[in-house]
Amino acid sequence: MFSKDVYIRRRETLLEKMAATAPQGKRGIALFIGNVEAPAQYKDNCYKWRQDSSWLYYFGLDDPQYAAILDLDSGEQTIFADDVDIDDIVWMGPQQSVASKAAQVGVPHTAPYGDLDEAVAKAISQGRRIHFLPPSRYFNTMKLSTLTRSTFDEVSTVKSGEGHHASEELVKAVISMRLIKEPCEIEALDDAGALGQEMHSVARDSIELGIIEQEIVGKMEAITLSRGWGVSFPTILTQHGETLHNHLHDKIIEPGKLMVIDAGAENNMHYASDFTRTYPTSGKFSPKQRDVYQIVCDCNELAFSLTRPGITYRDVHIASSRKMLEGLSALGLVKGDLDEMVSLGIAGLFQPHGLGHNMGLDVHDMEDLGENFVGYDPDQTRAHQLGLGNLRMARRLVPGHVVTDEPGIYFIPALIAQWKESGKDCGHVNYALLEKYYDFGGIRLEDDVLVTEDGARRTGPNRLPIQPDDVEAAMALAKEKRLSRK
Amino acid sequence: MFSKDVYIRRRETLLEKMAATAPQGKRGIALFIGNVEAPAQYKDNCYKWRQDSSWLYYFGLDDPQYAAILDLDSGEQTIFADDVDIDDIVWMGPQQSVASKAAQVGVPHTAPYGDLDEAVAKAISQGRRIHFLPPSRYFNTMKLSTLTRSTFDEVSTVKSGEGHHASEELVKAVISMRLIKEPCEIEALDDAGALGQEMHSVARDSIELGIIEQEIVGKMEAITLSRGWGVSFPTILTQHGETLHNHLHDKIIEPGKLMVIDAGAENNMHYASDFTRTYPTSGKFSPKQRDVYQIVCDCNELAFSLTRPGITYRDVHIASSRKMLEGLSALGLVKGDLDEMVSLGIAGLFQPHGLGHNMGLDVHDMEDLGENFVGYDPDQTRAHQLGLGNLRMARRLVPGHVVTDEPGIYFIPALIAQWKESGKDCGHVNYALLEKYYDFGGIRLEDDVLVTEDGARRTGPNRLPIQPDDVEAAMALAKEKRLSRK
Repeated sequence: MFSKDVYIRRRETLLEKMAATAPQGKRGIALFIGNVEAPAQYKDNCYKWRQDSSWLYYFGLDDPQYAAILDLDSGEQTIFADDVDIDDIVWMGPQQSVASKAAQVGVPHTAPYGDLDEAVAKAISQGRRIHFLPPSRYFNTMKLSTLTRSTFDEVSTVKSGEGHHASEELVKAVISMRLIKEPCEIEALDDAGALGQEMHSVARDSIELGIIEQEIVGKMEAITLSRGWGVSFPTILTQHGETLHNHLHDKIIEPGKLMVIDAGAENNMHYASDFTRTYPTSGKFSPKQRDVYQIVCDCNELAFSLTRPGITYRDVHIASSRKMLEGLSALGLVKGDLDEMVSLGIAGLFQPHGLGHNMGLDVHDMEDLGENFVGYDPDQTRAHQLGLGNLRMARRLVPGHVVTDEPGIYFIPALIAQWKESGKDCGHVNYALLEKYYDFGGIRLEDDVLVTEDGARRTGPNRLPIQPDDVEAAMALAKEKRLSRK
Repeated sequence: MFSKDVYIRRRETLLEKMAATAPQGKRGIALFIGNVEAPAQYKDNCYKWRQDSSWLYYFGLDDPQYAAILDLDSGEQTIFADDVDIDDIVWMGPQQSVASKAAQVGVPHTAPYGDLDEAVAKAISQGRRIHFLPPSRYFNTMKLSTLTRSTFDEVSTVKSGEGHHASEELVKAVISMRLIKEPCEIEALDDAGALGQEMHSVARDSIELGIIEQEIVGKMEAITLSRGWGVSFPTILTQHGETLHNHLHDKIIEPGKLMVIDAGAENNMHYASDFTRTYPTSGKFSPKQRDVYQIVCDCNELAFSLTRPGITYRDVHIASSRKMLEGLSALGLVKGDLDEMVSLGIAGLFQPHGLGHNMGLDVHDMEDLGENFVGYDPDQTRAHQLGLGNLRMARRLVPGHVVTDEPGIYFIPALIAQWKESGKDCGHVNYALLEKYYDFGGIRLEDDVLVTEDGARRTGPNRLPIQPDDVEAAMALAKEKRLSRK
C-alpha cells in the first residue's frame, strides 16, 4: 500500500472532477465494488486473489468483499466490509478490524457489507444518481445488477446521464487520473519491469532444443512467484508466433524455429510489466529470419525515438507501419507507393494489431473501462482498418503516460488467403513470394515506455538484448554456461 | 483427454441412473454448462483457463464456452459451442471444428452456443424438467438464472422434484459416479501425486533461515507449472500453521519455528494431489515440537492402517481423534476419561477440521455439488461438534474412493480463549499448561489414500518422509548439498 495521503488526495481529486459534472445536490453517489474471491472450481478453491484495480487506486485495501460509497454532494466517504468472527480467525488468523484498515487509507466511516444494499436503495429512492464503473468480473455484474435493479447489460454499458448504467462521467474522471502515472506508480512499474526482465532473461537462457516449452514457462514464472504477485497476464511462449495469443506450451523445441515470448510480472503493489522478445530456437537467426527480425527491431527503435509529449501515439503507430512497409518492400513482399500502402493499411496484413497500449495496474490499463475511453482523445475516432483499427492507445502523449512499444510481423496463412481472395491489397502484396513464408511464424519485440517531460525512457532497469547480434551473443553465452554445468 | 469410449460409457451410465428417477417421457433434460474464461481484471486478461470438473468428466473437451444437453427421454446428446471465425484464427491459430471435437468424445450432434437459450426455452415451454448441477462460478450462476428464468438463489440451491433449482437427482447420480475412481483416473491421480511430491521435496530442500517464504513458493510451483497444469489449490506455506488457510508468504524464515507446507499439483489431465508436511525451520525439532509432531504422525499412520473397504471414514476420524487425545493426555494438555473426551469432541480444540476429504478432478472433490451429498451416506448425519462436524468425508469406504489423511494439531490462542470462557471442555483441558504453547504454531501431516479391494495404498510414487528422524535426515542432506554448492 502507498501512504495514506496518496489515497486521500486521489479521492479528493475524484470528488472535484465529479463536482464538475453537476451542481451540488444533484451529483449523487459514486459506488465502488471491490472484487470477491474468484472460484476456479468450487467456492472454496479460488484463483489467486486479485483486487479490482480501480479499487486499489482509490482505496488501496487488498482484501476481498470491500465496497465503498463516496457521496458526491456531501463528500462523505464510507467503506462497507465485514469484521471477522471467531471462525474466520481459526481459518485466517487474527485480522485487523475494518475500521482500522479504513483508517489506513483515510476513510473515516465504515459499515457492514450487508448495509450496502440499503444505502444504495436509499439513494435510488431519493432519486439520486448512482455512478459506478462497468464491472470486469461476473460477481460484480451480478452485484451491481441486484443493487441497482437493472439488467446485466445495463450495468455493463457505459453511458452518460440518468439511468442505472455504468457512468461515463465516472469512467472519464477515473481514466483522466489513472492514465497519468504518479512518481510512486512509476517506481512500482520499474519494479515490475525488473521482475519481468529477469523472467525473460531466465527464459532466453533456458531455450534448448528438445525440451518442452512448458519447462521454460515454469522457470520464468517462478521468478515472479518468488518475489512478485505472479504473472501480469497468461504467458505467451510459442514457436507459432503467428498465433497472436497462444497459451499452449506443449510443443518440443525444434531447430530453426522462432520462439515468441510475451510475458510480464505483476509486482506486490500490483503494477504490471509486459515484454516480448523473439528468439531463434537454434541460437542463430537464418538469413531470412534475420531480415524480417531487423525490420521489426527497426520499427521498435523508431517508435521509441518518436515517443515524446505532443505527438499522438496514433502517429507513432503510423510511422512504425510505414517503416515496416519500407522493409517489407525491400524484401519484395510488398510493392508500390509507400504513402498509398500506408493509407490502405497494408501493414495490417503483417501486423494485425496496434503498436501498443497503456500500462499500469492492469497490463492493458483500464481496459475494463472501455478501450476507446482509455486510448482515444475526444477528437480522435478509431479507424476500421485491421492493424490501425486495433490500436489500443492513440492519444496525444503527455508526461506520465506509460505505453508499450510492440511492433510485430506475422505470416498468418488464413489471413493471407482471405486478403488474396478479397483483393483488398489493391495489388500491393506479392502473394507468390509470401507463400515461401507460410511456415515462418511471427516476430514481436516489445518494451514498456514512460513518456517524460522532454522525451521518453524505457521502464525496468535492464533492457533485454534486442539487436540480432546481441540476442545471438546472449544465447551463445547461456549455451556455454549450460554445457559447462553438464 | 481419455479415449472416446470413456466418455460415451460415462454418459450412458448417467442416462441409466437418471432413467431411474422418472418414467420415460417425464424425465426431461440434463443441462451441462462448461466454464467460460474467468476475468482476473478486464475481460481479456483472464486467470489460467480451468474447465468445469463435471463437464470434463462427461464431455472431456477442454475449451471455454461449451454446453450440452442430454435428453433424458430420447437419449439424444447435443453439444452447443461456436466454431471460430477468421478473427479467432488470427488470434488463436487454426482450430478444430466443434463437430470434430464433439466426435472425439462421441457426441453426435452439435449446435451454436446461442441455440442453447432456445433449446432450454422450448423444454421449459413443454413443461419438461431441466436438471442441472449447482453452478460453481458466477458466470454459470448468471447463465443458469437467465436460461431458466430463476433467481441466483434458486439455481444455486439443490432440491429434488419440480422447479428451476439445481437438481438433487442429477447431483446424486453424478456423485455416485465421480466418487469411485476408474483405473484411468487412478493413474492420473498417481501422476498428480508424483508432481506434488516433487514440489514438496523441492520445498523441503529449500528451507533456509533468513530467506522469505515466497521464494520457496516460487520454486515449488515452478515444478507443476513446468510439467503440470499448475497448483491444485493456492499453496499454504507458513510459519503460522495455527492459521489453517494462510496464503501470505511474506515472512522471513526464523529459527525454531515450524513450517507447514500444504500444497499440491494439478496434472495436465486436471487431477489433483494434496500433501502436507511440517518442518522445523532450523532442521531439528525441539523436544517440545517433536512430542506434538509424533502425536500427529501417529494419528496419520493409524488412520491409514484403518482405511479399508467397509469402515466409515467417520470412524477413522474418530479413531484418529482418540489417538490424538491419548497423546495430548500423555503431555498433560488434556486429562480425564478418553471415551468422554472423544464424545465431547475435545480433539476439536486442537484439530478444528476433519481428517480428510474426497479427491479427484477437484482437490476437495465435487465440493460444488454440496459437501453433505458428497461426503455423507444417506444414513449418516453430520455432527455439530467442531472438528468432527467439519469432516468432509464420512462415508463407508468402498474400493475406488480416494481420500486425504490429514490430522493436525494447532494451538490457536483465540479458540483456546473462547473455550476457556465458555467452559465447553467440561474440565478436560489444562489451560495453564496450554498457555506455554501459545507461540507453538501448528502441525499437519497429509497423504492421499486410495481405497483398494483389500485395504488402501497411498497415491503418488514416493511418499514424502514423515517420521521425525527421516525428516531431519532429509533436511540435513539438503543443507549439506546447499553448503557444498556455495
